[in-house]
Amino acid sequence: MCDRLVPACKLISCHREAMPEQQFISADYFRQFAQRVLVKAGLSPGEVSDVIEPLVYASLRGIDTHGVRNFKSYYVDTIIDGSIDPQATVDVEFETPMSARANGRNGLGLVAAAWGMRLAIEKASASGIGMVSIRNSNHLGAAGYFAYLAIEHDMIGVSMSGHLYGEGTSRGMAPVFSLQPMFGTNPFGVAIPCENEPPYILDMSTSVVPVNRVEFARDRGESIPIGWCLDAEGNPTSDPATAKIYLPLGGARETGGHKGFGLAMIVEAMTALLSAGWADENGSYSQDKIAHFLGAFRIDMFREPSEFKTAMDAMIDSLHRAAPAPEHDRVFVPGEMEHETEQQRLQTGIPLIKKEVADLRELSERFDVQFELESRTQ
Amino acid sequence: MCDRLVPACKLISCHREAMPEQQFISADYFRQFAQRVLVKAGLSPGEVSDVIEPLVYASLRGIDTHGVRNFKSYYVDTIIDGSIDPQATVDVEFETPMSARANGRNGLGLVAAAWGMRLAIEKASASGIGMVSIRNSNHLGAAGYFAYLAIEHDMIGVSMSGHLYGEGTSRGMAPVFSLQPMFGTNPFGVAIPCENEPPYILDMSTSVVPVNRVEFARDRGESIPIGWCLDAEGNPTSDPATAKIYLPLGGARETGGHKGFGLAMIVEAMTALLSAGWADENGSYSQDKIAHFLGAFRIDMFREPSEFKTAMDAMIDSLHRAAPAPEHDRVFVPGEMEHETEQQRLQTGIPLIKKEVADLRELSERFDVQFELESRTQ
Repeated sequence: MCDRLVPACKLISCHREAMPEQQFISADYFRQFAQRVLVKAGLSPGEVSDVIEPLVYASLRGIDTHGVRNFKSYYVDTIIDGSIDPQATVDVEFETPMSARANGRNGLGLVAAAWGMRLAIEKASASGIGMVSIRNSNHLGAAGYFAYLAIEHDMIGVSMSGHLYGEGTSRGMAPVFSLQPMFGTNPFGVAIPCENEPPYILDMSTSVVPVNRVEFARDRGESIPIGWCLDAEGNPTSDPATAKIYLPLGGARETGGHKGFGLAMIVEAMTALLSAGWADENGSYSQDKIAHFLGAFRIDMFREPSEFKTAMDAMIDSLHRAAPAPEHDRVFVPGEMEHETEQQRLQTGIPLIKKEVADLRELSERFDVQFELESRTQ
Repeated sequence: MCDRLVPACKLISCHREAMPEQQFISADYFRQFAQRVLVKAGLSPGEVSDVIEPLVYASLRGIDTHGVRNFKSYYVDTIIDGSIDPQATVDVEFETPMSARANGRNGLGLVAAAWGMRLAIEKASASGIGMVSIRNSNHLGAAGYFAYLAIEHDMIGVSMSGHLYGEGTSRGMAPVFSLQPMFGTNPFGVAIPCENEPPYILDMSTSVVPVNRVEFARDRGESIPIGWCLDAEGNPTSDPATAKIYLPLGGARETGGHKGFGLAMIVEAMTALLSAGWADENGSYSQDKIAHFLGAFRIDMFREPSEFKTAMDAMIDSLHRAAPAPEHDRVFVPGEMEHETEQQRLQTGIPLIKKEVADLRELSERFDVQFELESRTQ
């Protein structure tokens, strides 16, 4: 396993390579620490695991841009400063046996999305399919996590998170033929169960990279490749600090940038528009908030799930047999590198960069919650 | 309208600019001609319009890669040479009130997909959502056409067409980290109705460009941009004749190629796997055929359709107000350039390149069906 993991980490640019000197936190230690911090910060105890598990999922799987890194700045800080309401409960505003739209009431996106996927799974269990659209919410972490929740029920899961700034913003995805950032990076996830292979999980921003990926490079003092972002004037940039305009997946029009842009609009329609976040009676976007979509459907609406999952294995096996390109060892399908990283990190713990350690220490002091890390040379 | 159309045609590389001397065919004249050819070629008269309308849709909307161009070589020729069975009827193999899987029995993909979307719409009308997966079929033309059929029913429509060569092929999309073509260009379409704006229609291959786009450049004696394809040895190529390896949307891994590859796998799962095309009892792909997915759901499962459609208009208006980049006049959303082209071509007719004219003349002679074109200087 390990000799396969090292090249995998090198290939996935959002995965971090182990440093010569590295600090680690085990998933369980982080869970215990984060639980105590969140309760002291005012979160309902019943919702604590909804905040923690998506972060553990991301960090264990090497999606370091969406894991422990964001615990303080995206979630705890916004609870403390009042920009998010930790007491909010999601309200269903319209419902059918297979669908619902709801108001997140400016609560934590992680909590709203977990609630939404549970409802979608419940509806799908009873009716074949469940689709839930939620307005007025906040950042939900790694979108793929929520899609992943569906697969243990022999369902295909879908998750989306949309954000459109009606009048534009200073940092985000610009439409093709414009330099005006209008969208967040509108990610979506699709998860499909397999029989013996790790689950298929595609978790993608509709921009070339998500904002967190550029922030993460900044935190590590790294440059970013040309082709990810432009600066505020529309020039290509390799400096995370000047990256303001996020290119849609595909990049320029000639290489398919209109497709990433089009996908971002679909995410917006399924999240903010189906949920009635867009638009108020004046036709404008009344809440400059994030919206979500969570969907799941039962595979046995089509065929016996174990046969389907065996066919997924067969497809993946077929792709694994495709000859690797020079300088590559093998083909990886979505979710596979992450699964291998998870197997490793369950043993080694989650490696942390300096900023993450500093964030956790600050929370430890502020909330008087004990915190110690394991430091070792890998 | 016209002064906006000209730059639009220049921007969409798959749209053709009018030549100084140009031959045109009106949509209705093509319909009449094609109808007589198809009946003489052996197609059931009841299925003729299912073959013609997707081609007219594509050609009127400037999607010249998927319109009249393919009438002879993709459809009539394959009926004549027996590689497609024009008498095939699609058989439902499993069904619920909201879903079906079916066997296309090696008939025309255009016919199977139209049948599938009608069934999906019927199921959605009765039950809220309809999803139909069809195996053992053939090329379906512009995927977006079938998604578009849903919107007049106040539904969101989805269409997909998947093709995976279990042992690889000589020309197609290669997985990231491999140079072995494994997929077709696995397109999908999503159509969303608007109130006053033209319908939102995203119609995209999961490769940077579809195979037809490269063939079309070849037919016109044009080169293709670097970034679309590699030659058989894996070198970037601008020569359509040597283009064998189609890059997934996103291009290299660093700029998101794993996303295009991941989307191609989702298309395959929804089409060939849900329909039980993959895999036979030995776990291999028994039929080296194309499979489809057609889905539609009612917007009123979430909110009042006219409110939703007004919100779509508001979103599009917001994007139209994004400042254009230098050398661009405005932002276009998916389906908008195509709508403008359609308005123009309903007046001017569909412009044809020499190869298309030759193809139609050949069919005219072979089937003894009269054929005359309007030739004029634009």
